Amino acid sequence: MSRLEQMLDAHPHPAGPNGAEALRCIQACMECAETCTVCADACLGESKVQELVNCIRLNLDCAEVCRVTGTLMTRPSHRDAPALRAQLQACVEMCRACGDECERHGRRMKHCAVCAEACRACADACEMMMGALVP
Amino acid sequence: MSRLEQMLDAHPHPAGPNGAEALRCIQACMECAETCTVCADACLGESKVQELVNCIRLNLDCAEVCRVTGTLMTRPSHRDAPALRAQLQACVEMCRACGDECERHGRRMKHCAVCAEACRACADACEMMMGALVP
Amino acid sequence: MSRLEQMLDAHPHPAGPNGAEALRCIQACMECAETCTVCADACLGESKVQELVNCIRLNLDCAEVCRVTGTLMTRPSHRDAPALRAQLQACVEMCRACGDECERHGRRMKHCAVCAEACRACADACEMMMGALVP
Amino acid sequence: MSRLEQMLDAHPHPAGPNGAEALRCIQACMECAETCTVCADACLGESKVQELVNCIRLNLDCAEVCRVTGTLMTRPSHRDAPALRAQLQACVEMCRACGDECERHGRRMKHCAVCAEACRACADACEMMMGALVP
Repeated sequence: MSRLEQMLDAHPHPAGPNGAEALRCIQACMECAETCTVCADACLGESKVQELVNCIRLNLDCAEVCRVTGTLMTRPSHRDAPALRAQLQACVEMCRACGDECERHGRRMKHCAVCAEACRACADACEMMMGALVP
Repeated sequence: MSRLEQMLDAHPHPAGPNGAEALRCIQACMECAETCTVCADACLGESKVQELVNCIRLNLDCAEVCRVTGTLMTRPSHRDAPALRAQLQACVEMCRACGDECERHGRRMKHCAVCAEACRACADACEMMMGALVP
Repeated sequence: MSRLEQMLDAHPHPAGPNGAEALRCIQACMECAETCTVCADACLGESKVQELVNCIRLNLDCAEVCRVTGTLMTRPSHRDAPALRAQLQACVEMCRACGDECERHGRRMKHCAVCAEACRACADACEMMMGALVP
Repeated sequence: MSRLEQMLDAHPHPAGPNGAEALRCIQACMECAETCTVCADACLGESKVQELVNCIRLNLDCAEVCRVTGTLMTRPSHRDAPALRAQLQACVEMCRACGDECERHGRRMKHCAVCAEACRACADACEMMMGALVP
């Protein structure tokens, strides 16, 4: 069991019926924040950086949005709030946009291909989480 | 002219028709992030902290969401993206939730009263910004 | 009186002898975080983005470090902790590095010139704050 | 190989001789940011929240500092900058302070015990990283 799982387990208010989706969502958000941060920096190191400006901008925005969404999700106490649902929705849209752009460059650049995967996985995990929220 | 205004002015891609709303939105997000951060810490210093737990949690979430929304808004290059609209929406809902909670404590605690004002101002500024986005 | 000042004023534990330095430091950190965020995005919009890669990277790092330093400073309750001193030191060094790089491009690009000013102001405000910390 | 490792591997400028320390440092920072975020929320849910105020404050600060340190570390391009060293030092001190406080409550609360472990691991990983920086 990872330290994060131990922490969520030890929380005085157990996460309720959507604990599995929540854990997966947190992990996907944090991973996507990391891959987007590396991808922006990697794109800045490419010789054709000019063609990657839009990708860098989306990576930076996506990293921020994933980070804050993941952080909200790690606070198990109010996982069913409407504002959390709206934040998850923003994360889904951000990840789709960033994933689409990264995919366009994925054939030539491995970092964009892996980042596109992480974006898709995060969008999916956030949608699963939204489906698991108590209405 | 503040340094932020000078920066936005010097950006190679001018912000377009919604520059005034954008500036106001950035300022409101940053102010709300600050007031929520102070409010959480101030609530933690109150003798009846037990009654303020929900307020602290909302303050912390609202601070994060406002910070990331303000950061996205300070990148003028893609202010009309759908993901930005979704992030603004999340910020509106977060600020309304936090503002409502702070208002409940506003009579007894000045910091909650001022924070409630900042939350309402931020929600309004984000809604104005959403209205000004090119569809 | 700004909302931030009202908040710090309403905090149950007044900030102590270094309130003026603290307010200035918070404001400088937040302003520098904003200008660095805009500067990175503005540099990405320049035709010679290739020459600005290092500036963009420093802007991004500096924005993050200023944001977290400003956030720690807005929690008045433990402003004299050794870890805060170390964070202020990191912010000083980051702002000096970013300010030097921005200055190199300041003649050709107004956004770099203004950002360099904000970096210097923030480094100075953090140093003043360190000097005002109770040892 | 995790996605983060794949990303660092695919970066156009390989991380140099300190890649192993860097990966461990990033992972430790991100894990500590997560555990501190959960620990603050878990402490807020305890019946004796009054006694945990200091722990909550340190958790919140530590989460922020670890997050930004981990983010700077995930940009492999300038890992030897003096400002990064200073940020790692701030992270070490923050993690030591938070770990000490969490440990005081670790017998009674599992979340504080696990969080203390994560803080110590992060402080160690940051110190290892500082030792591996090219001078």
